[in-house]
Amino acid sequence: MKAVERDADDPLALYREQFDLPEKVIYLDGNSLGALPKTVAAVLSRTIEQEWGVDLIRSWNQHDWINLPTQVGEKLAPVLGAATGQVICTDSTSVNLFKLMAAAIQFQKPRKVVMSQRDNFPTDLYMAQGLQDLAGTGRIEHKTVAADQIVDALDEQVALLHLTQVNFRDGQVHDIKALTRRAHDVGALVLWDLSHSAGVLPLQLDDWEVDLAVGCGYKYLNGGPGAPAYLFVRRDLQAQLHQPLAGWMGHQTPFSFDPNYVPAGGMQRFLAGTPSVLAMKALDTALDIYQGLDVQLIRDKSKRLTQFFVDLTTDIPGIMLASPSDPDVRGSQVSLQHPAAYSVMQALIERGVIGDFREPDLMRFGFAPLYNSFSEVQEAAEQLREIIQTGFYQEPRFQVRQQVT
Amino acid sequence: MKAVERDADDPLALYREQFDLPEKVIYLDGNSLGALPKTVAAVLSRTIEQEWGVDLIRSWNQHDWINLPTQVGEKLAPVLGAATGQVICTDSTSVNLFKLMAAAIQFQKPRKVVMSQRDNFPTDLYMAQGLQDLAGTGRIEHKTVAADQIVDALDEQVALLHLTQVNFRDGQVHDIKALTRRAHDVGALVLWDLSHSAGVLPLQLDDWEVDLAVGCGYKYLNGGPGAPAYLFVRRDLQAQLHQPLAGWMGHQTPFSFDPNYVPAGGMQRFLAGTPSVLAMKALDTALDIYQGLDVQLIRDKSKRLTQFFVDLTTDIPGIMLASPSDPDVRGSQVSLQHPAAYSVMQALIERGVIGDFREPDLMRFGFAPLYNSFSEVQEAAEQLREIIQTGFYQEPRFQVRQQVT
Repeated sequence: MKAVERDADDPLALYREQFDLPEKVIYLDGNSLGALPKTVAAVLSRTIEQEWGVDLIRSWNQHDWINLPTQVGEKLAPVLGAATGQVICTDSTSVNLFKLMAAAIQFQKPRKVVMSQRDNFPTDLYMAQGLQDLAGTGRIEHKTVAADQIVDALDEQVALLHLTQVNFRDGQVHDIKALTRRAHDVGALVLWDLSHSAGVLPLQLDDWEVDLAVGCGYKYLNGGPGAPAYLFVRRDLQAQLHQPLAGWMGHQTPFSFDPNYVPAGGMQRFLAGTPSVLAMKALDTALDIYQGLDVQLIRDKSKRLTQFFVDLTTDIPGIMLASPSDPDVRGSQVSLQHPAAYSVMQALIERGVIGDFREPDLMRFGFAPLYNSFSEVQEAAEQLREIIQTGFYQEPRFQVRQQVT
Repeated sequence: MKAVERDADDPLALYREQFDLPEKVIYLDGNSLGALPKTVAAVLSRTIEQEWGVDLIRSWNQHDWINLPTQVGEKLAPVLGAATGQVICTDSTSVNLFKLMAAAIQFQKPRKVVMSQRDNFPTDLYMAQGLQDLAGTGRIEHKTVAADQIVDALDEQVALLHLTQVNFRDGQVHDIKALTRRAHDVGALVLWDLSHSAGVLPLQLDDWEVDLAVGCGYKYLNGGPGAPAYLFVRRDLQAQLHQPLAGWMGHQTPFSFDPNYVPAGGMQRFLAGTPSVLAMKALDTALDIYQGLDVQLIRDKSKRLTQFFVDLTTDIPGIMLASPSDPDVRGSQVSLQHPAAYSVMQALIERGVIGDFREPDLMRFGFAPLYNSFSEVQEAAEQLREIIQTGFYQEPRFQVRQQVT
């Protein structure tokens, strides 16, 4: 089927209208920074000019700023397959990982093994290392294993298994349900990082009996650069978990200015300091796009987009598919290996096809089903083929390293 | 001298032009949420529409988003009396307190006493409690004393003394230089919370040999609701401090995606996750107002504003001054005690005089010398007098509790 026919057949085609995207750009990096929803700029203007500028401090009540972390969490909950009262929006993914890992090891005492996968996203590993340095190896022992060793390594010493559902390099997808069950079988808790999943993979945190989860707001959720992150805690665990970043926003009665910390009931105990209202409003607005939308439709299109791209690039000389070939275990990205990946990606970007590069030799292409079309996939694949076949990427200007993202 | 004469004589009078303030409002709550600088809305629009919407992921390089924490920190440094390379902007005050407290106790081993003042701002105490719960009392012992017992309680067991320069309730100002010296005399480090100081009290962190400091961006710095916070670390301590919230933005080479954490040199090791670009840009823009401005001028006006207010309210029946009567040890706020403080403040707010209430019986009035005038002080005092003398505050609508800020 041709690209234009696929687009004509796309039940999500109209969603692209909800985003501002530049002319002559094929944006395949929504897995790093989601596109701008058209409604955000006006909401931020109103927040700045009316709420901050005119209503000032009164806006904490009048415009309910104080409830933004809960409100945004509740808006996100259906996208995660979570019932009400289990998701709150705050801080960064890194900081939220620390809170939940620390709370989990305290809860699981005397177990002390916190296990992860060797090629988990670095910040997930670093936060566990930082926690181990602080709490001491008598309290926490961080251990990493290869992806295919996870099941075998799960034993009754493991306090917590923390994994990212979609691997940031190759897009390989873990089976949350199965791994959560295996972890529970040995009495371990699970903490899932959903940064590359939320909004693009159907999630059923409640049905899968997930204990803990975190994720960022700026990828497929389109919450803007450095958008606030979120955390999920299974309802019956909440009252038993004590997180160490015990800031005043997590106190039972923040405005009593009690010198002793008493954690709030429910998810508010996972807050720390005062969240950015501007950042939270952008994410809040972006999430409106997901209201009433079936994530399964997004996943169906995502698999077709990535497969179409794989099919169109598989025979380009020098290109190797670094992502799973089975779309069922592939996230919404395709990673291609090429010895000159950095230069090829620079050449693509100059031609308006934006993906990103990951050391040492990977090009990552993220597909956001809400705004990417099959025609874009075809055009991107054709550009890639031409850049490689003509040797265009060997131009000296593509050899200079400067990319940081 | 009359209010209008004082205003005519005010070298900072023209700064008010740089803020958007509502008509018919006397805003005396800049110590909770600073007013909106006129330049912020346009910068945020451009950031959203051009940088996020059009330049997308490329903005991390093209618009140097990646350096925002450093750039904003450097802009703030002169306001703190800190030379370059010692201030970075990120996360919330609460989270930054945790990072620095944890780093300090590790550095000061085997000392384990972390000392503070009993009526420090609650989040400062909570974060120390949370750290103690996590690291264990074998590593950290949090101890609080009355304000007038601090000097006596400093001994060679103290690893860290952490205090807020300006007390949030009564505005009492600590002598940073003297207390820092006393702490150093017994080998303790100091961590100062400058949330109610920065931008309104002249600070000389370098000259005073301060080790560590934190503060928020949303009070006198006018960075917007929930603006990012900052942290300061004395240059020669930086390489020796290891903070536990070891997120990827604090890695020496974040984009190498190294599975092992290696802290960056300099202040970047105190970053954790990805910061909000929108929130950071608002603070960055707001700080332009301070470029080339002598904070001593602000302090001089601040003392005159608070003293004028004290003089005009001192004889109102039922009102007691809860702040120091000496302006040299009073921050830029005046706290007044009244048995019906909550209702009186509600009545003031209805009449457009905005301060805030603190349990159980305090009205706080913050004075921001960059936008408050002596005429406003006089009008606020007159309204307060009338509300109390006429019993206007006893109207039933002022009795209903709803304030959260």
